[in-house]
Amino acid sequence: MADSKPLPSLDGDPVAAEAWLRDVFEIIVDEAIRKGTRASEKVCEWKEPEELKSLLDLELQSHGETQEKILERCRAVIHYSVKTGHPRFFNQLFSGLDPHALAGRIITESLNTSQYTYEIAPVFVLMEEEVLKKLRALVGWSSGDGVFCPGGSISNMYAMNLARYQRYPDCKQRGLRALPPLAIFTSKECHYSVNKGAAFLGLGTDSVRVVKADERGKMIPKDLERQISLAEAKGAVPFLVSATSGTTVLGAFDPLNAIADVCQRHGLWLHVDAAWGGSVLLSQTHRHLLDGIQRADSVAWNPHKLLGAGLQCSALLLQDTSNLLKRCHESQARYLFQQDKFYDVALDTGDKVVQCGRRVDCLKLWLLWKAQGRQGLEQRINRAFALSQYLVEEIKKREGFELVMEPEFVNVCFWFVPPSLRGKQESLDYSQRLSQVAPVLKERMVKAGSMMIGYQPHGAWGNFFRVIVVNPMLTHTDIDFLLDELERLGQDL
Amino acid sequence: MADSKPLPSLDGDPVAAEAWLRDVFEIIVDEAIRKGTRASEKVCEWKEPEELKSLLDLELQSHGETQEKILERCRAVIHYSVKTGHPRFFNQLFSGLDPHALAGRIITESLNTSQYTYEIAPVFVLMEEEVLKKLRALVGWSSGDGVFCPGGSISNMYAMNLARYQRYPDCKQRGLRALPPLAIFTSKECHYSVNKGAAFLGLGTDSVRVVKADERGKMIPKDLERQISLAEAKGAVPFLVSATSGTTVLGAFDPLNAIADVCQRHGLWLHVDAAWGGSVLLSQTHRHLLDGIQRADSVAWNPHKLLGAGLQCSALLLQDTSNLLKRCHESQARYLFQQDKFYDVALDTGDKVVQCGRRVDCLKLWLLWKAQGRQGLEQRINRAFALSQYLVEEIKKREGFELVMEPEFVNVCFWFVPPSLRGKQESLDYSQRLSQVAPVLKERMVKAGSMMIGYQPHGAWGNFFRVIVVNPMLTHTDIDFLLDELERLGQDL
Ligand SMILES: Cc1ncc(COP(=O)(O)O)c(C=O)c1O
Ligand SMILES: Cc1ncc(COP(=O)(O)O)c(C=O)c1O
Repeated sequence: MADSKPLPSLDGDPVAAEAWLRDVFEIIVDEAIRKGTRASEKVCEWKEPEELKSLLDLELQSHGETQEKILERCRAVIHYSVKTGHPRFFNQLFSGLDPHALAGRIITESLNTSQYTYEIAPVFVLMEEEVLKKLRALVGWSSGDGVFCPGGSISNMYAMNLARYQRYPDCKQRGLRALPPLAIFTSKECHYSVNKGAAFLGLGTDSVRVVKADERGKMIPKDLERQISLAEAKGAVPFLVSATSGTTVLGAFDPLNAIADVCQRHGLWLHVDAAWGGSVLLSQTHRHLLDGIQRADSVAWNPHKLLGAGLQCSALLLQDTSNLLKRCHESQARYLFQQDKFYDVALDTGDKVVQCGRRVDCLKLWLLWKAQGRQGLEQRINRAFALSQYLVEEIKKREGFELVMEPEFVNVCFWFVPPSLRGKQESLDYSQRLSQVAPVLKERMVKAGSMMIGYQPHGAWGNFFRVIVVNPMLTHTDIDFLLDELERLGQDL
Repeated sequence: MADSKPLPSLDGDPVAAEAWLRDVFEIIVDEAIRKGTRASEKVCEWKEPEELKSLLDLELQSHGETQEKILERCRAVIHYSVKTGHPRFFNQLFSGLDPHALAGRIITESLNTSQYTYEIAPVFVLMEEEVLKKLRALVGWSSGDGVFCPGGSISNMYAMNLARYQRYPDCKQRGLRALPPLAIFTSKECHYSVNKGAAFLGLGTDSVRVVKADERGKMIPKDLERQISLAEAKGAVPFLVSATSGTTVLGAFDPLNAIADVCQRHGLWLHVDAAWGGSVLLSQTHRHLLDGIQRADSVAWNPHKLLGAGLQCSALLLQDTSNLLKRCHESQARYLFQQDKFYDVALDTGDKVVQCGRRVDCLKLWLLWKAQGRQGLEQRINRAFALSQYLVEEIKKREGFELVMEPEFVNVCFWFVPPSLRGKQESLDYSQRLSQVAPVLKERMVKAGSMMIGYQPHGAWGNFFRVIVVNPMLTHTDIDFLLDELERLGQDL
C-alpha cells in the first residue's frame, strides 16, 4: 500500500490536531450539551435502522477522509443519538449531564491510562482508594476493601466469587467440581445479573433460589429461612444471600437487618446489590431505607445511576480486611506486578481484579463530589425523592393515571388509562387492553422525539410505565410536561 | 441539610456550565494534549504516594468547592498523571494520543448512553455491528457474531464460557457439577487472563493445562497433542484451546494452522487470544503471522492496544451464526428487552452479554478508521514493525545492549549491560547482577520523568526491558533517545 498515502492527516501536526479537536469540542457543546439538554429540542431524532444506516454512511472503507468530513460525521453521530441528558429522558436509571462529572470523564479519556499500577496511574490509584473509603464510610465501615468494576452486574459477580472463595478457597484452583452443590438466595425482584452471574461463574442458574417478595417487592425474610431449609434438605450448601437495595423496576428496599439476622444464623455471606439504591446513603432523610447495610459482607453501588457520574461507575465494597479480594483474584503476573520495584507494591492494585487493563472510573465521581460536596449530593438525592413525590401527587390528581403502588423510592410506576378504557375495569379484556397502551405510547413519544419513558410488564401486571426522575436539572414543569404529553399522545386511544 | 446550600453551582445555569467546560477543555489541550505529547516535557512528574496525596488534597468533604478551585484540580490531576501519549512512553502495549480516536471517546462520554437497546443507542447498535463485521472480515469470516467487552481478559472469559456452553448447554442452568471435569489448553506464554478466567468461571486453574512453547515463545503443537492425551488419560474432557497471536512479553505468534489441525482432530473449540497481535491482520505484509486464524471459533482482539483506539476497546469475534452468544448469556429481562416493541427487537443486542449497562466502545475505533482508512491503519502497523526493526538494528550496533531474541513483532526485548558487567558473562553472579539493572534504571527514568519502559523477568531469564514502539508519532529520534537515555542512566552501574 506504499502507493496510497492517507488523505491529509493530523499525524505529526500537533497544531492542526489541536485546532481540529477544538472544532470537535464546539460540535459537542452545540449538539450534545446545548441542544442535548434543551427541552425544546428532541430527545432523539428517531430513524428506522435502514434509513439511519444510510444517513450515517457507516461502512468502513479503504481510504481515509478529510478532517471536514470527519467533523460532519461527529455532528451526525451526536445528532442521531439519544440525549440521555435531556430533561425529558426518563427511560433508564440514569439521566442528566453533570458538567463536573463530564469533565472528569473527558480528562480520563485524554489521559487514557489503565488502573493497574501506581507506576502508570499514580493519581488514580490514590484517588480510587479515597473514593472507595468515602463510599465505605457511608455504608458504615471504617475499614475494608473494594474496587471499581465495569458495571453493577460484574460487581455482583465479584461478590459471588468472593463469597465462594472465602468458604472454599480450593475453588480457585480445583474448580466447582471439588465443592458441594452451592445455593444463592435472592428475591424474585432481584436484578437479572444474579442469574447471569451464577451461569457465568459455573454455578448454574439452578443454584439461584428465588425468595418471595411482599406486595411492595421486598424480600420476605421468613421465606428466605424457608428456602434455606429447602435447599439444605436437597443437599445444597447455602453460601450467599444477595439482597437488593432499590430494585430495578419497583424501587423496593429489602429489609436488610432481618436478612442479616438470617445470614448470621446460617453463616452466609450477605451481599447487598445497591447498584441502584446505594446513593440514598448520602441522604440523612432517606438512608434509613438501607438500615442494616453495615452488616453486609459486600455491597455493589453504581454512582453512574442515581448520582449521574456517567457510565461506567460501579463500586464493589467489602468489609473484609484480610486481602480477600487480592487473594481470590491474583495471579501474580511478573511482567506487570514486579516485586522488585522502587515503591510500595501494595499500591499496584491491579491484581485484585479479573481484568488486566482497567479503565479509570473514579475521577468523574471524585470531581463531582469535590464540586458538590457531600451536602450538594445529598440535596440532589433529596430533590429526586421530592420530585418523584410531586409526580405521584400529580398522578393521583389526574384522571386516567393509576399508580401501580405508592413508591418509597424514585421509581414511579403507573398505568396511563386512555379515555376508551376509563371505567371499564370490570370488562374481561381490560388488563390485556391496558397492557397494549404503553407500547403504543412509547412508539409515539419516540417518533415524536418528545420524551422517553420505559415500560414493562411485571409479575402478573401488564405493561406499565416506570418513570425515573433523577436528572438534577428537572423542575415541576418537566413533570407536568410528562403527564400532559402522555395525555396528548394517548387521547385517541 | 436544608441550611447549607452548595457553593456557586453550575446546576441550572447552562451558559455558565458551557463556559466552564470550555475552560476545562483548554486545560486538557494545554496539559494533556500539548505538553502531554511534547518530547521536552516529562512523561510523568514522579511523586511519592504520601506527597502526591497531599499535593492533590484528595479527601472528599462535606462542602462543595468553587468552579475556579475545580479547574485547578483538573490541571493538577493531569499534571501528576503519566502521559501515555508521550513519545517516550514505551511502558505498556498501548501508547500515543490519536486525535480522531480521542474525539470518539469524548463524544461517547458526552452522550453517556448504554449499548443495550436500539431504543437508547440507535447509532451505536448499528455502528458496533459494522465495526465487528469489518474486524471479522479481516479475520477471514463473511458472517459471524461478536461484541465489545470490557477488555481482553473478559473477552477471553467469554470464549471459555461459550465453548463450554456449546458443548454442554446444560451448564448454564445446572452448573459445572453436572459436567465432567474439563480441560483448557494454552501455552506457558499465554496471558494470565486465561488462568484468571478459569478460576472466575468456576473451572479452577487446575483445568488449564500448560503446553510447552519453543525458544521463541510459540506453542508447540506436538506438545499440545501430548497434553490432550494426558488430560484425557486423567479423565478430563478437553474442550478449548486458547492460542495466542502476539504474546504479552515476547510478542510470539502461535502456529495457528497446526493448532487448528489438532483442534479439528479432537473436536475442540479454538480460541485465538489476539488481544495484542490482532491488529496485524490489517497489514498485507505481516498478516501471515496469523495464518490460520480464520479456522478459529473465537478471536479476542483489542484495538485499544496496537491501534491506539483508547481504553477500553476489545472485540470478541465469533464464527458462529447460530446465535450462540445470545443463547449462552441471555436472561430475557422483561423490563429492558420488551418483545412488544415497535421495531425489530433483534437490534436489542444487550442480552448477548453478561453486563447490563455497557459502554459504547465502537465509536472511537469507527472514527479512527473513517479518518485513516484501512490503508492508513495498515501504514501504522507497518510503521510500528519498521521502527521496531530500527530499534533492533541500533541495539545490535551498540555496546552494552543485548537482545533477548530477534523479535518477529513489535515487542523488543533486551538487556542493558552496564559498563561494570560488560565482558563478565562468565562470572557466576552475572545473571543475578544483570537482573538488578533494569529495576534501578526504571527507578531513575521514572524519577527523571524522561521515559518509561517496562521490564520483567521471564522464564529462566532475569529482568530485561520490553520496549513497545506503537505510538504512530514516533521517529528514529525517539528511538535514538531511548537508547542514549538508557546509556546515560546506566553509565555508573
Ligand atoms: C438493582 C440492580 N442491580 C444491578 C444492576 C446492573 O448494573 P449495571 O447496569 O451497571 O451492570 C442494575 C441495573 O439496572 C440494577 O438495577
Ligand atoms: C495476549 C494478551 N491477551 C489478553 C490481554 C488482556 O487484555 P486487557 O488488558 O484488555 O484485559 C493482554 C493484555 O496485555 C494480552 O497481552
